[in-house]
Amino acid sequence: MATSFSSRSHRPSPEHIFQCLNAHQQTAALKAAIELDLFTTIDEGNHRVEEIAKRLRSSERGIRILSDYLTILGFLRKEDGRYSLSEDAALFLSKRSRHYMGTIAGFLTNQQHYENLVRLPEAVRRGGAANERGDNREPNDGLWVSFARSMAPLTVPTAIFIAQLVEAGESRPMRVLDIAAGHGMYGITIAQQNPRAHITAVDWPAVLEVAKENAIKADVADRYTARPGSAFEAELGDGYDLVLLTNIFHHFEKETCVQLMKRVYQALKSGGKAVTLEFVPNEDRVSPPTEAAFSLLMLVGTDAGDAYTFSEYNEMFKKAGFTETTFHPIPGMPEEVLISEKVG
Amino acid sequence: MATSFSSRSHRPSPEHIFQCLNAHQQTAALKAAIELDLFTTIDEGNHRVEEIAKRLRSSERGIRILSDYLTILGFLRKEDGRYSLSEDAALFLSKRSRHYMGTIAGFLTNQQHYENLVRLPEAVRRGGAANERGDNREPNDGLWVSFARSMAPLTVPTAIFIAQLVEAGESRPMRVLDIAAGHGMYGITIAQQNPRAHITAVDWPAVLEVAKENAIKADVADRYTARPGSAFEAELGDGYDLVLLTNIFHHFEKETCVQLMKRVYQALKSGGKAVTLEFVPNEDRVSPPTEAAFSLLMLVGTDAGDAYTFSEYNEMFKKAGFTETTFHPIPGMPEEVLISEKVG
Repeated sequence: MATSFSSRSHRPSPEHIFQCLNAHQQTAALKAAIELDLFTTIDEGNHRVEEIAKRLRSSERGIRILSDYLTILGFLRKEDGRYSLSEDAALFLSKRSRHYMGTIAGFLTNQQHYENLVRLPEAVRRGGAANERGDNREPNDGLWVSFARSMAPLTVPTAIFIAQLVEAGESRPMRVLDIAAGHGMYGITIAQQNPRAHITAVDWPAVLEVAKENAIKADVADRYTARPGSAFEAELGDGYDLVLLTNIFHHFEKETCVQLMKRVYQALKSGGKAVTLEFVPNEDRVSPPTEAAFSLLMLVGTDAGDAYTFSEYNEMFKKAGFTETTFHPIPGMPEEVLISEKVG
Repeated sequence: MATSFSSRSHRPSPEHIFQCLNAHQQTAALKAAIELDLFTTIDEGNHRVEEIAKRLRSSERGIRILSDYLTILGFLRKEDGRYSLSEDAALFLSKRSRHYMGTIAGFLTNQQHYENLVRLPEAVRRGGAANERGDNREPNDGLWVSFARSMAPLTVPTAIFIAQLVEAGESRPMRVLDIAAGHGMYGITIAQQNPRAHITAVDWPAVLEVAKENAIKADVADRYTARPGSAFEAELGDGYDLVLLTNIFHHFEKETCVQLMKRVYQALKSGGKAVTLEFVPNEDRVSPPTEAAFSLLMLVGTDAGDAYTFSEYNEMFKKAGFTETTFHPIPGMPEEVLISEKVG
């Protein structure tokens, strides 16, 4: 069993209300299990409450209750009192896996997100972030360095998908501009697949340090240039084959997105492509669930950001000069890629 | 679509991890909607973003994003840009319904619950509440008056189920002791159905004030006696036909439960019944989901409480003198009733 966005039919009951009001327990439980490293401990062969508790220097009561709760959520299996990892947990939550992504808990559940969420009624009234940090055009090193450090593992399947989509494997010379690069993993993955690719990364100076570290780890640092500054003001250069815009537009109002995309158009060579990675809900704005739900984070965390639909992106990008944009869902991931070619 | 505990099959994907780490958004969104009274406003005939925003003196952006999110959760429906209430929302979240229970948000998401949850890793290590409030044998007026005031609406179907189970409708003389009565609704409902029932309610003085108010509202105050004090120390009296133990055992360790149940045995007349209302998971402790998940709240909020299984209750009650206990699931509600008769 697992908690998920899924359809259900039932007679009227307060149970779903009860579950949603208690849903913050799911966040706390998964975060705690990651922090305690429960999944790795089970993966190392500790399957019973007593074994796990001893290894984690924790109480048996605490381990039993937390492990049962994680079984309800679908991250563990329980048979005859023995806990084992679900497929997702083994792949993504055990440090023995090279796909470990437990670090994302640090960013997704940080104090700023919590403080934004508790002020949701105020955000609904005024139509934007209730805190002082709604305009994401200024540096906010604490938040975005944390993002860059913790969210990189989540990018792997998406980064590979994008690299394939732009045919990085064909090893043509490729000049890539990575705007608001963060951890830099999207550009770095292209550089790994294409030894003739050169990446120029733009972001705030403190964030770019993380991208540079990742470029060194990936052994592409000799083809990696950092351009510290704002995506709206930095000198971007021109003649690029590709410009990457990964998870940046959702922070801003439409006019600001158009303004940024005009800069991108200028920076591309003729025939070059802008690659946008975003949470793109359907036109009904309530499906698919994860993409559509992303709007709520933008309401509490930004002055005017949103999870824009494809038709909204298409319209914004047309205003910036891109006559056609194509849509590419990412298998198994709740994000979509948009490709806009500079024609002529 | 709706978030719920439900089975799902899928290939490995980080999406479920992402959803669980973000699940606190569900809590915040439903709480905010109740606080803003969005459901009542829609129920009053405001269906479009502009209408709802105007009525609630809120921004259109905020109302649109919150309403879309509630649609994803299954509390609203959206068709051609018009929002309407789901069956659950119409019945339980609109103030126009006599079953309105929006008040439960106040208790379920209060600051103490939040503070308990953020200290979950510490609670797992030490095996009990990380705060100072783990032993529920002392008064904690702020919490339990809040509980009594906010949770009463949730009790209606359960209170009616219990009243039927104890044949309150047959109007025999019935002396009922309601231990840790809280809002008092379980005893009061019996008194409403049986004009010859007399209720004696035990709880801390400040909490009993709420029960007395509810008895007056229900027009049974002349058959309602308050006995302020601890369930473990107050003079309970004896010769009762029924003793109600609603949501009390889960706060304590087994030994304490046995001790309380011995007092109950003494207070009952021969042939009298102890009626226990509890979250009773199956013996696997991971189903049904809501009952089993309740343990987590007991880990963070109590020193040694739990969601005990039926076999555990049966064993505890036997130690207290009750030779047989029967099990009664409540249709549509995530709690169970246990009936233990005093034989001889």
